[in-house]
Amino acid sequence: MQVPEFTLRSVDTALVDDPTTAHIAYNDKYVIVYDYSQLDVSAATKELTALLHDLESVGLQTEVRAGYEESLLVFVQAPRELLGNTVHHSRVKDWLYGITKKHPGGSSNTVVAGANEAEDLMSLYHLVTWTRELGGAGITPGFGKWKNVASVFPLHNPRTNTKLLVHLSKKFFLTVDDLDQIRDLWGTKVAFYFAFIQSYFLALIFPCVVGVLAWAFLPKYSLVFAVIICVWCTVFLESWKIREIDLSIRWKVRGVGKLKVNRPQFQYEKEVVDDAGRVHHIFPRRKRIIRQLAAVPFLGLSTILLTFVIATVFALETFIVEGYDGPYDYYLEYIPTVVLALLLPFINNYLEKLAARLTEYENHRTEDYYEMSLTQKIFVLQSISNYLPIFLVAFVYVPFGQTFIPHLRTYLLSLAGVKADPNFVFHVDPNKLRNEVITLTVTGQLSSAIEELALPYFKNSVRDWWRTYRTTHTFALGRQTKFVRGDDPIEAKFLRRVRKQASLAPYDVHDDISEMVLQFGYLALFSPVWPLIPIGFFINNWFELRADIVKISIEHQRPTPIRNDGIGPWVASLEALTWLGSLTSAAIVHLFGFSNSTIYGLDRWWTLPITIFASEHIFLLFRAAVRWALHAIGSEHIRKERSELYAERKKHLDELEASSMKRGHLDVVERERRKSVRMTAADVFWTRQVEEGASRKAGAGIIRAMKGTDINDFLKEE
Amino acid sequence: MQVPEFTLRSVDTALVDDPTTAHIAYNDKYVIVYDYSQLDVSAATKELTALLHDLESVGLQTEVRAGYEESLLVFVQAPRELLGNTVHHSRVKDWLYGITKKHPGGSSNTVVAGANEAEDLMSLYHLVTWTRELGGAGITPGFGKWKNVASVFPLHNPRTNTKLLVHLSKKFFLTVDDLDQIRDLWGTKVAFYFAFIQSYFLALIFPCVVGVLAWAFLPKYSLVFAVIICVWCTVFLESWKIREIDLSIRWKVRGVGKLKVNRPQFQYEKEVVDDAGRVHHIFPRRKRIIRQLAAVPFLGLSTILLTFVIATVFALETFIVEGYDGPYDYYLEYIPTVVLALLLPFINNYLEKLAARLTEYENHRTEDYYEMSLTQKIFVLQSISNYLPIFLVAFVYVPFGQTFIPHLRTYLLSLAGVKADPNFVFHVDPNKLRNEVITLTVTGQLSSAIEELALPYFKNSVRDWWRTYRTTHTFALGRQTKFVRGDDPIEAKFLRRVRKQASLAPYDVHDDISEMVLQFGYLALFSPVWPLIPIGFFINNWFELRADIVKISIEHQRPTPIRNDGIGPWVASLEALTWLGSLTSAAIVHLFGFSNSTIYGLDRWWTLPITIFASEHIFLLFRAAVRWALHAIGSEHIRKERSELYAERKKHLDELEASSMKRGHLDVVERERRKSVRMTAADVFWTRQVEEGASRKAGAGIIRAMKGTDINDFLKEE
Repeated sequence: MQVPEFTLRSVDTALVDDPTTAHIAYNDKYVIVYDYSQLDVSAATKELTALLHDLESVGLQTEVRAGYEESLLVFVQAPRELLGNTVHHSRVKDWLYGITKKHPGGSSNTVVAGANEAEDLMSLYHLVTWTRELGGAGITPGFGKWKNVASVFPLHNPRTNTKLLVHLSKKFFLTVDDLDQIRDLWGTKVAFYFAFIQSYFLALIFPCVVGVLAWAFLPKYSLVFAVIICVWCTVFLESWKIREIDLSIRWKVRGVGKLKVNRPQFQYEKEVVDDAGRVHHIFPRRKRIIRQLAAVPFLGLSTILLTFVIATVFALETFIVEGYDGPYDYYLEYIPTVVLALLLPFINNYLEKLAARLTEYENHRTEDYYEMSLTQKIFVLQSISNYLPIFLVAFVYVPFGQTFIPHLRTYLLSLAGVKADPNFVFHVDPNKLRNEVITLTVTGQLSSAIEELALPYFKNSVRDWWRTYRTTHTFALGRQTKFVRGDDPIEAKFLRRVRKQASLAPYDVHDDISEMVLQFGYLALFSPVWPLIPIGFFINNWFELRADIVKISIEHQRPTPIRNDGIGPWVASLEALTWLGSLTSAAIVHLFGFSNSTIYGLDRWWTLPITIFASEHIFLLFRAAVRWALHAIGSEHIRKERSELYAERKKHLDELEASSMKRGHLDVVERERRKSVRMTAADVFWTRQVEEGASRKAGAGIIRAMKGTDINDFLKEE
Repeated sequence: MQVPEFTLRSVDTALVDDPTTAHIAYNDKYVIVYDYSQLDVSAATKELTALLHDLESVGLQTEVRAGYEESLLVFVQAPRELLGNTVHHSRVKDWLYGITKKHPGGSSNTVVAGANEAEDLMSLYHLVTWTRELGGAGITPGFGKWKNVASVFPLHNPRTNTKLLVHLSKKFFLTVDDLDQIRDLWGTKVAFYFAFIQSYFLALIFPCVVGVLAWAFLPKYSLVFAVIICVWCTVFLESWKIREIDLSIRWKVRGVGKLKVNRPQFQYEKEVVDDAGRVHHIFPRRKRIIRQLAAVPFLGLSTILLTFVIATVFALETFIVEGYDGPYDYYLEYIPTVVLALLLPFINNYLEKLAARLTEYENHRTEDYYEMSLTQKIFVLQSISNYLPIFLVAFVYVPFGQTFIPHLRTYLLSLAGVKADPNFVFHVDPNKLRNEVITLTVTGQLSSAIEELALPYFKNSVRDWWRTYRTTHTFALGRQTKFVRGDDPIEAKFLRRVRKQASLAPYDVHDDISEMVLQFGYLALFSPVWPLIPIGFFINNWFELRADIVKISIEHQRPTPIRNDGIGPWVASLEALTWLGSLTSAAIVHLFGFSNSTIYGLDRWWTLPITIFASEHIFLLFRAAVRWALHAIGSEHIRKERSELYAERKKHLDELEASSMKRGHLDVVERERRKSVRMTAADVFWTRQVEEGASRKAGAGIIRAMKGTDINDFLKEE
């Protein structure tokens, strides 16, 4: 069978070396993956026709090629005029909504070049995905009419990606210019993640140094170290908040959330046209608030479920490892861990799906709000899975183990029909807490590295192999997929790359931020347990930053350069963890840091609330002081922004002044006018001393009179 | 002796009925009180000359009359052109600094009428007090060169004052229009106080109703009532914050703090000229922060001192009333209270003076910051004097009285040389706490009413009488003050009124806000003690609002209509009190609300921290929820403001569009251009399917091929 003629238009191949390495621009190209596996030929053809029509009707150029399996790659390119004009309109819109203070100039037909690839790609994304009313083609992948559109993504720029990675791997600390480069490539949303991890990485130097000193010179479970870490957490967080504002002003995205468009899934109850003629789609806020409250019982029940599962497995493990001496001892030891490892992802997955449905039900207006709400729910679930085992060891196993484990053992043995030895004495492992924290943090870092880098790499490699195998062994499968092999030789390499990108997962920046926040949580919550934790984190984060760039470049579709003015609700999560840390650190120091088990003759459990109460309030006072001080010092960028606003308006004012005619000085004829004006009652008073120097004379006269000097002397003197 | 001729210029008195009731305008008049009692004749005359020169050199008109005793009244009036132009400049400045979003129009010579008396008077105040560089006469009362200028104040508008008072006394609730009237008369700073007391008064209805129900149906020291009040405090405060923003937008003062000028006492370390050409006087922020930290030991030591004094007097009183049966029993009983009543104002006065010096040392740039800082310090001192007695009764006297009072008695008796009866048993008065709260709140309201209204009225009356007596009995005093009697008959009544106003104290709105905040504090901190407290407050506040209008009208100089965008740091004080309330209410319910003194077999003091901890965190969670919900519902005015900004920019944009020429539609020649362009490597790919429908054909071909339909069938079909 022959490759259709129209895909093989003859070109001067001598001119074309390899389009993948040629100076191809990436700022005006998008790829739409259309999956027709669920449709028959005529339905698929019809839908494709509609898709191409919609794209072309907004002025976009299309090229269609075959994708992997039953999918098509629709290449979308925006003509320079269209893209430049869309970018200009986007800038005008920023100004209209008050994101930028200055009108960009030009008129509705102005064509500008985007400041960077990210700005162009964002406008192109809008052209592809926004609704027809907003000037887009309305292609919303996986939703409604376009449920067969598998994904919409921009193409990776391999040269810039590589250059960036090489550049960053040579540097130990990132500067703000490096962050600008990331912003230029992938947009502010991703750049803010890198800004955060960079700030956090830098800030970690302090707890590393203190940690080594504490490990060398301070006692275990040191109060001093706990206090220092708590202080550090607070200062870091408050300064990050200022940095976030600084960067959002630098990147001109401050307050960008308010101009985000409706997500297609948003269902409104009424339309309101405001004074400015804008149409608002309204879903009552009160209604949404009530719906959001459903998250409270959901998270409550999830917490109970997870606690129950983890506690049960934990109890079984403890029983088997330390208290069981019956048959199959050796094999049974691993069962609970295996069960947990199998069960937990399953439960978490189920709960996350529920959370997504709940968030869908909350009916958020923009994609941003939806994402935030979902991410926060998932974070709570993740926190429980991550921190709960340590809580159980610290506040249940170690303090009460000696009491309840023998009972538990007897009970479990009786279930198994075995009679327990009544003289069994259980000794709590005093290092269990430290070991648990080290295990969880170290294995956590390692497993996440594997999960993020090695696993997807392996998965993608296998899938690639399989697809290539299938494609090259078409006849064995009884299909004529050999067709795909009909790639023009000069396009083949390029298409191979695009097909690979099309099969990758989209990048979700929240996953990466979440990982950092969980790490910060270990530090904030359990720092006194093992002062060397920060060093592990420090080393990990150096790699993490670079690995994430590799990950985005290789294992994910290029992220759509969405704009954001910070890491959003994660700041609140970090604050919550720091606050919680002031409680848990105090509790750990209180319970583990003293050798005798009673304080003032009372069991130390009764004095624990006092310690926690004191610690928490010292923390809150300190935080208020830090906030106050940093607020007083303020953000340089905010001052600069105000200054610029002033300068701009001053310029405008000066222009106004220059154009208006001089009308002469004010008070020239005032005095004369005053004298000649017709008298009214009020004027009588105000014209008494209208003559030059009259007020002075009157005043001096009164002073002399009061001081006992004869007024006539004064009048003579004059 | 004769009255100097020049003060008696003949006018047609038939025209003049009485300038006080005639339609005299109050928007352009200010009075400067110049006190020359410390100077000799020539120095005084010289200073007066300088004063008049400075005023006249900025274009202000002056009239001098004699004041009470050795003082002069310098009447200042601004010509309409000057005042109108100053008002215009002030509006332009608001726009320059981003307070208002819209340029007011006009050029540098534009003359406008102020929107109300307050706006005109503020500009006149600027003309009188601002430095020469800022375009004012630089008269700063009581400071530096002008230390003999006793005060600078606008004249009361008796008609509007009376009208306002009559209007308000007919209404039970104030509307926002009534607040506008107050703003028009006295400016936003005062108007915000009335807005606050009005909101608070309205909100009090809820605790009143709940209080009556609690009193009738709930047990004493009810947990339920405490919780409800805590919830109410939180909701009230959060909604006030939104109301404050709404009003500040309505009154166009949002963010007005940042354009305030330097206070004359401010000492800067360097001058910086920014990009916009503005000169900034800088005192390093870090330095100020360190100086402000001095407030911490000051307030700490003051607290200790006040606690010591109050506790000592308290102990003596308890001892004498309830434990002493020695000689002079009857007379001794009143001594401690008398001592405290004499001592406390003395100590407080001293501490407040120290606070003022400390605040001066902090070297704040604007009068606003200075005021805020001082007010907050004084508030802490006042809180201690007000709330400490109740704390002592609740947490020392009642729970421990039985134990320590007999010891105290023995000790005090031994000091007096009397041997105590060892069998003496002391019984704590169980109603002491309730009585203390009722006494303090009721007497507090009454005594403040007397202090604010009756006392100043009496004082002013006596002073007036004395001054009139002195003036009319001049010869008895050996001075020629008869001079003053030389008032022109048609001016006499007017001058009498101005002289009276000149002798009044300036109005400080913070005193009144402070009173309300202290009242709110009783409710927040001790609500479970006596659920009927809110009713007393509700009645009090109805009168308070009206009495404050009388007070400002009659007993104070008319306040300079300074602008503010809220009640400033008082919101933080209210928040602190609410937070503290979640602790104290819980503690009171815990200690007094249960009949048995042990919980779980432990003395209830050991379980107290747990209760407090739980209560506080429930409060904090609830507050976070309220904030989140109210934030989501948001402020109407902010939305409106955004909408207006959008509309304004949209208009600007439409004008731009209209003026620019139409350049024809975009994609007209695009397709042809694409075909004819010279090929480059990248273009090869993008020109494959450039013909109409080519993409569609290619896609359809691939689909058919993959679905197993022969491509030739498809080609035939086409």
